[in-house]
Amino acid sequence: MSSSFGTLFRVATFGESHGRGVGAVVDGCPPGIELDEGDIQTQLDRRRPGQSELTTPRQEADQVQILSGLENGLTLGTPIGLLVRNKDQRPGDYGEMNQIPRPSHADYTYQMKYGIRAASGGGRSSARETIGRVAAGAIAEKILRARWGVEIVAWVSATGTVESDAIDPMHLTRTQVDATLTRCPDLEAAARMEDLVREVKEAQDSVGGIVSCICRGVPAGWGEPVFDKLEALLAQAMLSLPATKGFEIGSGFAGTAMLGSQHNDPFVRKGTGLGTLSNYAGGVLGGISSGEPVLFRVAFKPVATIGKTQQTADFSGAPTELAARGRHDPCVVPRAVPIVETMAAQVLLDLALRQKMRE
Amino acid sequence: MSSSFGTLFRVATFGESHGRGVGAVVDGCPPGIELDEGDIQTQLDRRRPGQSELTTPRQEADQVQILSGLENGLTLGTPIGLLVRNKDQRPGDYGEMNQIPRPSHADYTYQMKYGIRAASGGGRSSARETIGRVAAGAIAEKILRARWGVEIVAWVSATGTVESDAIDPMHLTRTQVDATLTRCPDLEAAARMEDLVREVKEAQDSVGGIVSCICRGVPAGWGEPVFDKLEALLAQAMLSLPATKGFEIGSGFAGTAMLGSQHNDPFVRKGTGLGTLSNYAGGVLGGISSGEPVLFRVAFKPVATIGKTQQTADFSGAPTELAARGRHDPCVVPRAVPIVETMAAQVLLDLALRQKMRE
Amino acid sequence: MSSSFGTLFRVATFGESHGRGVGAVVDGCPPGIELDEGDIQTQLDRRRPGQSELTTPRQEADQVQILSGLENGLTLGTPIGLLVRNKDQRPGDYGEMNQIPRPSHADYTYQMKYGIRAASGGGRSSARETIGRVAAGAIAEKILRARWGVEIVAWVSATGTVESDAIDPMHLTRTQVDATLTRCPDLEAAARMEDLVREVKEAQDSVGGIVSCICRGVPAGWGEPVFDKLEALLAQAMLSLPATKGFEIGSGFAGTAMLGSQHNDPFVRKGTGLGTLSNYAGGVLGGISSGEPVLFRVAFKPVATIGKTQQTADFSGAPTELAARGRHDPCVVPRAVPIVETMAAQVLLDLALRQKMRE
Amino acid sequence: MSSSFGTLFRVATFGESHGRGVGAVVDGCPPGIELDEGDIQTQLDRRRPGQSELTTPRQEADQVQILSGLENGLTLGTPIGLLVRNKDQRPGDYGEMNQIPRPSHADYTYQMKYGIRAASGGGRSSARETIGRVAAGAIAEKILRARWGVEIVAWVSATGTVESDAIDPMHLTRTQVDATLTRCPDLEAAARMEDLVREVKEAQDSVGGIVSCICRGVPAGWGEPVFDKLEALLAQAMLSLPATKGFEIGSGFAGTAMLGSQHNDPFVRKGTGLGTLSNYAGGVLGGISSGEPVLFRVAFKPVATIGKTQQTADFSGAPTELAARGRHDPCVVPRAVPIVETMAAQVLLDLALRQKMRE
Repeated sequence: MSSSFGTLFRVATFGESHGRGVGAVVDGCPPGIELDEGDIQTQLDRRRPGQSELTTPRQEADQVQILSGLENGLTLGTPIGLLVRNKDQRPGDYGEMNQIPRPSHADYTYQMKYGIRAASGGGRSSARETIGRVAAGAIAEKILRARWGVEIVAWVSATGTVESDAIDPMHLTRTQVDATLTRCPDLEAAARMEDLVREVKEAQDSVGGIVSCICRGVPAGWGEPVFDKLEALLAQAMLSLPATKGFEIGSGFAGTAMLGSQHNDPFVRKGTGLGTLSNYAGGVLGGISSGEPVLFRVAFKPVATIGKTQQTADFSGAPTELAARGRHDPCVVPRAVPIVETMAAQVLLDLALRQKMRE
Repeated sequence: MSSSFGTLFRVATFGESHGRGVGAVVDGCPPGIELDEGDIQTQLDRRRPGQSELTTPRQEADQVQILSGLENGLTLGTPIGLLVRNKDQRPGDYGEMNQIPRPSHADYTYQMKYGIRAASGGGRSSARETIGRVAAGAIAEKILRARWGVEIVAWVSATGTVESDAIDPMHLTRTQVDATLTRCPDLEAAARMEDLVREVKEAQDSVGGIVSCICRGVPAGWGEPVFDKLEALLAQAMLSLPATKGFEIGSGFAGTAMLGSQHNDPFVRKGTGLGTLSNYAGGVLGGISSGEPVLFRVAFKPVATIGKTQQTADFSGAPTELAARGRHDPCVVPRAVPIVETMAAQVLLDLALRQKMRE
Repeated sequence: MSSSFGTLFRVATFGESHGRGVGAVVDGCPPGIELDEGDIQTQLDRRRPGQSELTTPRQEADQVQILSGLENGLTLGTPIGLLVRNKDQRPGDYGEMNQIPRPSHADYTYQMKYGIRAASGGGRSSARETIGRVAAGAIAEKILRARWGVEIVAWVSATGTVESDAIDPMHLTRTQVDATLTRCPDLEAAARMEDLVREVKEAQDSVGGIVSCICRGVPAGWGEPVFDKLEALLAQAMLSLPATKGFEIGSGFAGTAMLGSQHNDPFVRKGTGLGTLSNYAGGVLGGISSGEPVLFRVAFKPVATIGKTQQTADFSGAPTELAARGRHDPCVVPRAVPIVETMAAQVLLDLALRQKMRE
Repeated sequence: MSSSFGTLFRVATFGESHGRGVGAVVDGCPPGIELDEGDIQTQLDRRRPGQSELTTPRQEADQVQILSGLENGLTLGTPIGLLVRNKDQRPGDYGEMNQIPRPSHADYTYQMKYGIRAASGGGRSSARETIGRVAAGAIAEKILRARWGVEIVAWVSATGTVESDAIDPMHLTRTQVDATLTRCPDLEAAARMEDLVREVKEAQDSVGGIVSCICRGVPAGWGEPVFDKLEALLAQAMLSLPATKGFEIGSGFAGTAMLGSQHNDPFVRKGTGLGTLSNYAGGVLGGISSGEPVLFRVAFKPVATIGKTQQTADFSGAPTELAARGRHDPCVVPRAVPIVETMAAQVLLDLALRQKMRE
């Protein structure tokens, strides 16, 4: 287990899908910040299942409690304990799966690693694990916004085979993102994505997608060469999310096909410093933020738990069929949007605080 | 700065391109392992510039010295100091660049972060920084091979616009990879890649590419949920390499367009445990190795330093032209092959040692 | 803030004296261990205030809740969330102290460090902070006992000017320690200690003392040279406890007056390995456990909060008098006994797990 | 192995007594600091054996080389590689000891931990290991002095049974400390210490002692509650030094015998803030520096390696005699003075940098 993340802004998460609760301890939060549970609840509500007919029918209120680290609405600089009680526990739903490791799920590997695993709901590999991250990252977002004016907005740029390239991220808002069920702010593409998800749901199948993210207002100088480069920590953060298979910053894989003379971003004067005309770099040079917006994309595979019957083997190796009966989303990508944002916020705030040692 | 990596097998690197030397301290190497400088030199030689007409003409012997941690050819379990002396220092080559931050290079961001930067050669953002990683990772490779039979082989699967899909990684060897100058074991594609690099070099331009990597023989159970998942640490390791812009494991970005019923890898009996029929997962489930080969890909952008004249601005913001005169590669991707392998080895060995706490 | 401790068995604590609750997240607990709340409650009860007329009159039930990491009474290897709700909050008691930093307390330094501090009860510098440590360390104790037969027993060897040298720690039990209110198993000395504490309490003053501790059954080989030597981590752990001023292992300060020929512990055959005739080393050689019992002592200063009137200054520097009215112990040393034991357990288990990488 | 120390100013040391060299990598050094090898050499020379007839006759120049991290005499903020080549290797001296673990030395425990050990000179448990620490800490000292005016002075306050209480540390200088061979600035006591060491040397025995240390000019606010309290990290740092058995801050063990009303340090106005009339606290309150001088003491046991014949057992458990023939000091305490200073500097600078996240 390695359930803590960050060097100075350090988050330790805990909690299974079906225990008493999930949450996090945030160590290293700057003191004197105004904070209340509402600041955190907003992102938890965006992450919550059951927000639309497109997602899982589980209704979980997911109300966060701040256990410590505050007095009179201000952070003390001491650890902030965050707790969300689990409700709506129906362990019976997962009973049958005990003998059959779900294909492309973590049942088999948890058993091999720990010699034991949560009999119900996937334990720490459940999407519910992300609640602690989101709660902690919501605090990071608030600080980044207040201190440096950083704005982080993620959106769905692909759902299955439906992609959208018609989005200008420079002025995109979360309100625009939340305007569609699929969290794609390109309305035409969003409609096609919605159709696709309905179709897939009907077929008891699932579909993946891509979440893109922009971080505006990040000043030059954040990122710690060489192993804690900004893009390296973002990559770790994103690939630590359930169901992720890829990460790109700036030009990403497409950039490999360009020539250096095309890909290089020419410097120009911007304000009192330098900026670049293009931003193939995605806002980082040598692992350090350049002052240009940080732009990255994260690939999410289709959800592994599907109702459709699959051929597979049980733990003994005997061939069998499996048709999952539990509650599951046909497409988690819209709910991944706040998770990507809050993980990015954790990375950025940690690097911002680390940079202060040089001031 | 954050120049150390790993939890139990912990590597701290040091060194600029033009100081006295570069190297690493490896802390946490298991005791009683046979080791000599030759074990390390092999990968350093594969990383070395000047191996062919396609790469930089710098001739650096890059001979490694083991400073500590050994007696009678066996590791003591104590820190292993590794040193490669710098030679062939020609700081004059870079003089002009002091006033002009090279586009898409780290001159500007280092200056903004540290308020100072190496006047010559890029300092820690130089490719020479990777020597310490390769030396340390070569030790990790040796241990992985001896203890668990793990084989790591990386190869070039794309150079600029030339891609190869005709490679079966299951039996690929380093000898096959090294058979072509471009380190693409698909001979037909390799020839086209070579042509492309020559053409680009002629134009004083540069080109990027993709390095693919397979890790065979990784047992089930490695990887520490949730923040140190195997794929999360691989992503961090790879995005910490100079010039990288993307990381994919298994199906990666392409997998987002698949349905769950296609993407799920059905379990079947293999040996005494389970394996999967397909491997879209890329050898990891829930952040833990499954026993199937670990497969990933890394995107490298075209080298930023090019001889071709570029429009840009100097540090004051005044428009100017820049045509780099220093020594530089038109394509670093072939030399990235051993770097990718040795970084992967560091990640795997660290996770292997961490898993031992549960045995 | 740095509220986490340990490398593989990693504990993150949270909680102020007067917020909603205190607790910890234990990351890296081995899987498959039988555990319930009773295992933890025993040490929390020994730490609890209000156990006797000698201690603070606060009555806090301090019931622990396990929030996660368990299923069917077995640990899953996933993070264990631990929560103790705060009750009996009387913030008014501390109102007056807001303008006057209590002498030898942390009011002043928290204000200087964070620019803010908990207005009531001392925040993280309150003794209540230790609940999270004790809860987490109680889990470590259980594992050490079950897996390696390690027994940890601490006792009070001095209270103020009353010392006891008449204790043979080799067979000492916690039952014997708990037989007296002062937790000194030397009954004659215990009686004099009790008299002293009553006298001091009467005078509205306070008194310090020394807690000694033995760890029996620690196998040879635990401890990570050079910075994480067993004695170095014990020293950090003990000096991180509130009110501690000193740490000794084995011969300690007295050993400095001996000759090498007296102080050296001669080796002899013991069982299948070696032991030593004397144990001035205190069970460690070169930072690694030797197989002999680990013996150390911790100095606790007299409690800073006293009812007696003191001359001091307020935050503005103006001279003033202070007579604390809040609830406070005349002597915390008996309650420190389980805290010392559980912190020692955290250190030992972490080092035991780290040693497994070499097996 | 755990050979790295610090969170932001992070030092990784390497090197055995008889390999090619010893040294350190310093990660996180602030940029733009004037630094040359002379800054480091001064403390290495004070640590060096063979400085007087009282110490080991080994003559080692111990010249440090800075391998990286500098340009034009200024730190770049990148890792600083430090190397001291080993000379004067006479492995034969230790040949006989291979079958006999030296009493109170680490031969036995290294063998039990690693299953192997350096056949000559004690490996990482040799005093030579401290060279890397001293070199790294000398850099920390320079920065603390330049940025905050911090002055660290250690001295010998006891050698064996000879103690000195006649030293006023408030104005003590290193020149005064170095005025006597025993590094005790109380000339009368120093003379008696010298006599004792000569006598002990004559008898082929050894003697321990106590090093006291003052850190003047430490501003209020350094130290990270709760596990990385200033005194906790100092305790870890000091108990990680070879041959240490105890640590006290402020009143230490003697303070346990005082009443709270005596021990509490009353606040008074000092400059623009508060100070205290007495300083039993030793400059820390609740783990955070108070602005008063930090005062601590470290106990060193008598050197284990002595020429006098000892009864012991060999590795097989058979009784035997041992009379060490290698080169060894009768008293290492004077040479420990710069080691204590430089380790204190590492702790202070790391905490100073960590505090900057709140500025």
